Amino acid sequence: MNSIKYSFFVADCMNPFYNRDVISVNDFSKDELELLFRYADKIGDMSKVERLELARGSILAYAFFEPSTRTRLGFEAAMLSIGGSTLGMLGSKSTSMEKGESIKDTIRVIDLYADIIVMRHYLDGSARFAAEIASHPLINAGSGMEEHPTQAMLDLYTIQKEKGSIDGLRIGIVGDLKYARTVYSLIYALDKYDVRLDLISPNELSIRKEYITNLKHQVYEHERLDDVINELDIIYVTRIQKERFPDEQEYMRVKGSYVIDKKILDNIKSDAIIMHPLPRIDEIKYEVDNDKRAAYFRQVKYGKDIKAALLALIINEYI
Amino acid sequence: MNSIKYSFFVADCMNPFYNRDVISVNDFSKDELELLFRYADKIGDMSKVERLELARGSILAYAFFEPSTRTRLGFEAAMLSIGGSTLGMLGSKSTSMEKGESIKDTIRVIDLYADIIVMRHYLDGSARFAAEIASHPLINAGSGMEEHPTQAMLDLYTIQKEKGSIDGLRIGIVGDLKYARTVYSLIYALDKYDVRLDLISPNELSIRKEYITNLKHQVYEHERLDDVINELDIIYVTRIQKERFPDEQEYMRVKGSYVIDKKILDNIKSDAIIMHPLPRIDEIKYEVDNDKRAAYFRQVKYGKDIKAALLALIINEYI
Amino acid sequence: MNSIKYSFFVADCMNPFYNRDVISVNDFSKDELELLFRYADKIGDMSKVERLELARGSILAYAFFEPSTRTRLGFEAAMLSIGGSTLGMLGSKSTSMEKGESIKDTIRVIDLYADIIVMRHYLDGSARFAAEIASHPLINAGSGMEEHPTQAMLDLYTIQKEKGSIDGLRIGIVGDLKYARTVYSLIYALDKYDVRLDLISPNELSIRKEYITNLKHQVYEHERLDDVINELDIIYVTRIQKERFPDEQEYMRVKGSYVIDKKILDNIKSDAIIMHPLPRIDEIKYEVDNDKRAAYFRQVKYGKDIKAALLALIINEYI
Repeated sequence: MNSIKYSFFVADCMNPFYNRDVISVNDFSKDELELLFRYADKIGDMSKVERLELARGSILAYAFFEPSTRTRLGFEAAMLSIGGSTLGMLGSKSTSMEKGESIKDTIRVIDLYADIIVMRHYLDGSARFAAEIASHPLINAGSGMEEHPTQAMLDLYTIQKEKGSIDGLRIGIVGDLKYARTVYSLIYALDKYDVRLDLISPNELSIRKEYITNLKHQVYEHERLDDVINELDIIYVTRIQKERFPDEQEYMRVKGSYVIDKKILDNIKSDAIIMHPLPRIDEIKYEVDNDKRAAYFRQVKYGKDIKAALLALIINEYI
Repeated sequence: MNSIKYSFFVADCMNPFYNRDVISVNDFSKDELELLFRYADKIGDMSKVERLELARGSILAYAFFEPSTRTRLGFEAAMLSIGGSTLGMLGSKSTSMEKGESIKDTIRVIDLYADIIVMRHYLDGSARFAAEIASHPLINAGSGMEEHPTQAMLDLYTIQKEKGSIDGLRIGIVGDLKYARTVYSLIYALDKYDVRLDLISPNELSIRKEYITNLKHQVYEHERLDDVINELDIIYVTRIQKERFPDEQEYMRVKGSYVIDKKILDNIKSDAIIMHPLPRIDEIKYEVDNDKRAAYFRQVKYGKDIKAALLALIINEYI
Repeated sequence: MNSIKYSFFVADCMNPFYNRDVISVNDFSKDELELLFRYADKIGDMSKVERLELARGSILAYAFFEPSTRTRLGFEAAMLSIGGSTLGMLGSKSTSMEKGESIKDTIRVIDLYADIIVMRHYLDGSARFAAEIASHPLINAGSGMEEHPTQAMLDLYTIQKEKGSIDGLRIGIVGDLKYARTVYSLIYALDKYDVRLDLISPNELSIRKEYITNLKHQVYEHERLDDVINELDIIYVTRIQKERFPDEQEYMRVKGSYVIDKKILDNIKSDAIIMHPLPRIDEIKYEVDNDKRAAYFRQVKYGKDIKAALLALIINEYI
């Protein structure tokens, strides 16, 4: 993918998202991401009635082989807000999978019912595999432990909206960096920008090295949150899951070291922002929610706009 | 809330439902309820195409933490019939609640995806709590054992449609008055009118006194249905649930005394009507269904119109 | 039903589908089926925007008392593609059935929320029963072990589209002919045409004779697929379910004899087509999928058009 500047403002532009799969954030250039962000801005400024024309008569089908209320509802809300409609299937229990049907056949059938497919699946590689089968564009809403590209897109958009730009920032990602698929997509996306990336996690949950060997920029790893938190512009928090620890006491000890509470707010920059992919359990205390630096619910709002923009750009060749 | 007569027919009227939560029927004046009923009449007279403009581009999100096919479908049908769209989540099993997320965070996220929220939750106080969190209007579709205000609204509307007016009637509520949340909302709503209220239940399931201490009108309690049934204009039947009785034999004995069957039809007024919030099991026999006084399915139809009217009034400031 | 040729092209025609239930394929004449096919052709040629007017403002409610992702999604996609909207309930678990409500009451309520009902139920006779209760037209999407009329309609439409016409063909149905309800609907539908029907199944799973006594045409039964496969124009494959066999070894032996694999492709006619109601497990090998004679995914596409045509014809008197 070259780095020609696309623009939806120019009548004869090419829309690089048209009819395209969204499997990995690595498939998109920085210029393309910025086009997406500008278009999300534009959608955010449209009136309700204007937006309704963007996907009129188009159907989004969701195929979620793993539960996810939040992501599914986000895509549904985005599609409905641009005038399309939605249908889909949840979990493997209510589906033909029960009868032993392969993901291959399931996707082939759904492909015939929809103009665009949003899939989540518990297996690595499933999204790429499904996209090859489907004739319609497919959006990966989480595949195995690998990627969650639309989460990374909305994360970047959040940073840009909250901070004005992404380049030049110091960004810390905190918590479980080993198993959280959102983290990998985010790191790949940030690597397209000129940022300093600090990864803060317990040893047991540090980033899987084999997944970051191809990064352009160096990343800095830390075990103690206190060492860097006061220097960060972005504090991106993820959940530490109990089931990752063989020993519950070890879990309790570790977990406590990465909790964002009111005391920590005194140590962070006055213009820093705190992000979280949600759902959160107790890694960010409720007492933090009312601080203006707590951006995780604004992040959900930005996420809806990014999803609507992405869907509109994929569906409409000229926009 | 004062008692100015609002009217949607007058161009400069104020719409008291606009952008408002519906948590308890007590939050609404008699005048407001009557405005709602008049508007439901109007919606009932509109053509399909006219109705479709009332909620065009608006999204209703349902969050049902407790199963309820009937109520959910009623709201969905109402919203779709006025041109809006719907999305939502059912049960706690398919949601992030499983991952330990609080109702607070769930509502905050749903709030960002919807223009109006309909919630059912098994905990007392949950609807009021959620409404405070949500920035969009929230409709309580049943919270704990407390209230179910839209059921009361449709019950009153049914009485008005079937009997011409509510004032002056003698209304009996039969069955489980202790645990049925629809009953409390209905009693509060009826207390705004000039009616005589007879409550007929086994001792074990009589009304919880602490919930009716603030009524304006006296209510009359009975244990035997035969004592009053021939004097009632409205016979409102509720289900008696087996699980309320420690002893199954006691349940069988009690239950039989509150069954509406063909024999009873001879003893009730010729212009009485029989209502039920549904689902019914066997507290009203199928043999009663074809009697013109059996109003419980017409009640469902009125319920759809009331829900459509309520949604339209909440969504549109000027109507 | 007489055999007047209806035509939707003529302004003063009668639309024989308008407001009609679809319970058994036997309720429809050959002429009516052909009208449906011609209208499905027409819908297939319409632009997206034109189609959207066919069901604007109409609501399809699905009531699936038995799981079926494929059929449900097919009806949803069809309804959305002609501009209508959908709502519904799945399984008996999330419904009032749990509280002991009868199918009678459930249908009565859904009837008040919808303009058209699509029902699947595990009991024989349930669709006919429900249609009598509902005031709106009801489509049987599978009742008990009896019928699945819309599957038969789409099967016939597939044959017509793929082969040009149905009359004169030699059609083989392979696999479980005893328990597969799609098979019965298909046989009844084909009996309206001038075809030769070969039924190929293990003895244990041969057609239930009492269900085919009223056929106009003779059918030919075989136990060995090899005996006839090279003469067939249509090879309609169904799944053989393990649970039908008391002895697993017997199952394994039988199953293997009815598998369509690459070797078999050499023995069948060059213009034959292979069909399957899906989901398939391993009765058709994946290696067959890329052969042009493999028509089972095209069948899904035809199915969507047939469903859209059927819904549009039922909803609109003049079309």
